[in-house]
Amino acid sequence: MTIQIHTLSNGFRIVTENMPGLKSAALGIWVDAGARHERLDQNGIAHFLEHMAFKGTKRRSALDIAEAIENVGGFINAYTSRENTAYYARVLEEHVPLALDVISDILLEPAFDPREIEVERGVILSEIGQSNDTPDDIIFDWLQETAFPDQPMGRPILGPSERVRAFDRDNLAAFVQEYYGPEQMILAAAGAVDHDAIVREAEKLFSHLPRRNVEASPKADFVGGEKREIKDLEQAHFTFAIEAPGYRDDDVYTGQIFSTAFGGGMSSRLFQEAREKRGLCYSIFAQASAHDDTGMFTVYAGTSGEKVGELADLTVAELRRVTEDMSDEEVERARQQMKAGMLMGLENPSARCERLARMVSIWNRVPDLEETIDKIEDVTTAKVGEFAQKLCLTGKPAMALYGPVDGAPALATLKDKLVA
Amino acid sequence: MTIQIHTLSNGFRIVTENMPGLKSAALGIWVDAGARHERLDQNGIAHFLEHMAFKGTKRRSALDIAEAIENVGGFINAYTSRENTAYYARVLEEHVPLALDVISDILLEPAFDPREIEVERGVILSEIGQSNDTPDDIIFDWLQETAFPDQPMGRPILGPSERVRAFDRDNLAAFVQEYYGPEQMILAAAGAVDHDAIVREAEKLFSHLPRRNVEASPKADFVGGEKREIKDLEQAHFTFAIEAPGYRDDDVYTGQIFSTAFGGGMSSRLFQEAREKRGLCYSIFAQASAHDDTGMFTVYAGTSGEKVGELADLTVAELRRVTEDMSDEEVERARQQMKAGMLMGLENPSARCERLARMVSIWNRVPDLEETIDKIEDVTTAKVGEFAQKLCLTGKPAMALYGPVDGAPALATLKDKLVA
Repeated sequence: MTIQIHTLSNGFRIVTENMPGLKSAALGIWVDAGARHERLDQNGIAHFLEHMAFKGTKRRSALDIAEAIENVGGFINAYTSRENTAYYARVLEEHVPLALDVISDILLEPAFDPREIEVERGVILSEIGQSNDTPDDIIFDWLQETAFPDQPMGRPILGPSERVRAFDRDNLAAFVQEYYGPEQMILAAAGAVDHDAIVREAEKLFSHLPRRNVEASPKADFVGGEKREIKDLEQAHFTFAIEAPGYRDDDVYTGQIFSTAFGGGMSSRLFQEAREKRGLCYSIFAQASAHDDTGMFTVYAGTSGEKVGELADLTVAELRRVTEDMSDEEVERARQQMKAGMLMGLENPSARCERLARMVSIWNRVPDLEETIDKIEDVTTAKVGEFAQKLCLTGKPAMALYGPVDGAPALATLKDKLVA
Repeated sequence: MTIQIHTLSNGFRIVTENMPGLKSAALGIWVDAGARHERLDQNGIAHFLEHMAFKGTKRRSALDIAEAIENVGGFINAYTSRENTAYYARVLEEHVPLALDVISDILLEPAFDPREIEVERGVILSEIGQSNDTPDDIIFDWLQETAFPDQPMGRPILGPSERVRAFDRDNLAAFVQEYYGPEQMILAAAGAVDHDAIVREAEKLFSHLPRRNVEASPKADFVGGEKREIKDLEQAHFTFAIEAPGYRDDDVYTGQIFSTAFGGGMSSRLFQEAREKRGLCYSIFAQASAHDDTGMFTVYAGTSGEKVGELADLTVAELRRVTEDMSDEEVERARQQMKAGMLMGLENPSARCERLARMVSIWNRVPDLEETIDKIEDVTTAKVGEFAQKLCLTGKPAMALYGPVDGAPALATLKDKLVA
């Protein structure tokens, strides 16, 4: 067994996996703090904080942080999602202690220099501008907002510009104080790593952190609805979603198999019908994403303004059809895609590191591959059929449209066709 | 030595590398046929052909192709660049023969069914629309066009919509006839692969192909100039380029080290000055790309309309400064980044497979890592300084601007500042 887990006395968890033959390692800290933990007036602060981590600590300037890792040829980065903030690095094996020291420093000792806050505000406003200029990026924020209106789960990770303009050092420090406790953190490392050495380092760096009383984020409530933004773009961007299982739900694998069979690859129904037979679009896919207490089955497609109506109708007709005639062959193919995709993905240390953190965060253990494969094998055609029926016939849909989309049908019309 | 090369009697080359411990393989065929091989009236056909490969062969429908690979959990894809078209797959090791059979089938026996051509035309027009809607995508096409005006090297890979609307089966067949010869193809495979078995299969599949007399594409001539497209976007997108060494040039490593030190990471001058100190942008980077007979050093940044002038001036001032004071420390860091980046990238079979094909295409052999590392080590600070001087003081620049860019200085003004 090369996966090892250790918990410090304050609840900080460490999970490592040694991958024989590798000369590099991926490592990082995943914190249970993301956009869904923000109150309305805090929206965007988790992401702002992620940026400020790189802007200097008590010991290091922004330049020192960048140089420390890049001097040894590594890289360091971070991301914020709805449930987590992750700070991670990839380095050659001899530099793992250095990377861990830098990550702990930026996570625990950010300086929040007011001048640097002002500078970084400009960077984040620019990031928001770039997202707003990218239709197939911003439309997913709108879909999320439509699915979960007036809830932390529905708010954009970057936050609205007007809030980003207002955050100050106290806001940042308060968010850290509230959510960056040791029980909210997981240190994961995969590749050329030595578990005992990492535990020893982690003990030094993190064992002094006091536990926090962290309030759970409000339960997500998938409401659904429609957002339509007409704009003079070349493409009409279409997204359609229905609530799907969260990652603690037994049905989560069924949802994954369903979405793969429906629109996960070139052989899927959606790709075959919309792109291969009709040539309606270049990008088209379905996917299922899972969070703690909810999940989302999503279809995205970009098409022309004249064809967005046809595409919307087709998506719903195919969803309707799949409730009736999902075949053993399709389900078997989706199982193979999930299994092989997992095996191939895990040959990459960064992907493996991320899986370790995710599994420990959800289950406090890392299921071995056989266990996961068994769960995939357990998904029968009958289960997928039942899942599809429940999803399509009782789920509340959400839809976001952007571009020359005046010709697209209303959500209510699509919903009627779905249950007809 | 785990890298093995074999050439069939008709000139078709095979290169493989076994990577111990892996259970999957990446494999593909790289063809010396891309946008730069197209005459004006053919612009977009290499890419159209790449799409048609997946639309059916004499033995397989489009669905059969997708199912063949996805039934075993693999994936198959393709891309077209200025110099190549690549068809590649990733599968578990037992499915390598199947993947090779599918790739050879789509490459050698495309059906070009006229009905499928019509359908795929719609898909490609949608792809063009999507690119046009994405500012930080389309701006690189404009930069390329500005650098290499009225030449195959400057034309967009997707082609203009009006040409894509006109291509027919004869155009496609003629392009295949002209460029898809055995000497123009390299089969590369990395991961859990058996060289001898692959050679045996390749012998069966490709040894019958007759050689072609392929005309070399016209030599690229970097002319430079400015394109400015004012549009109501949130971000002003700025790109600036100067000709850099092609991949056969001894200076190509110097160019890579220069661009890494100048704007390749968080510790680079450009990132530090523009983003960390001034907060002018979120995305900003410099890179050097290399082709057969030319290359391009490029800076990209997205900023606000009010700040695009400051950003352009800063870029040029930093380029000017780097001709005078590049330090040993910066060059050493860039060398470490290049070396470690290469080592970490090569832990991924897809990246390794692509490197094999590229090296065989350029050098007809695969330099070992030590040889490449020696070339990186040979790049001294003095060489980088001389390179920077030549680049900045004698290079002809190209610039493309998109968005609220009325406030950006003219290229002539920037050029004057560069050589002042």
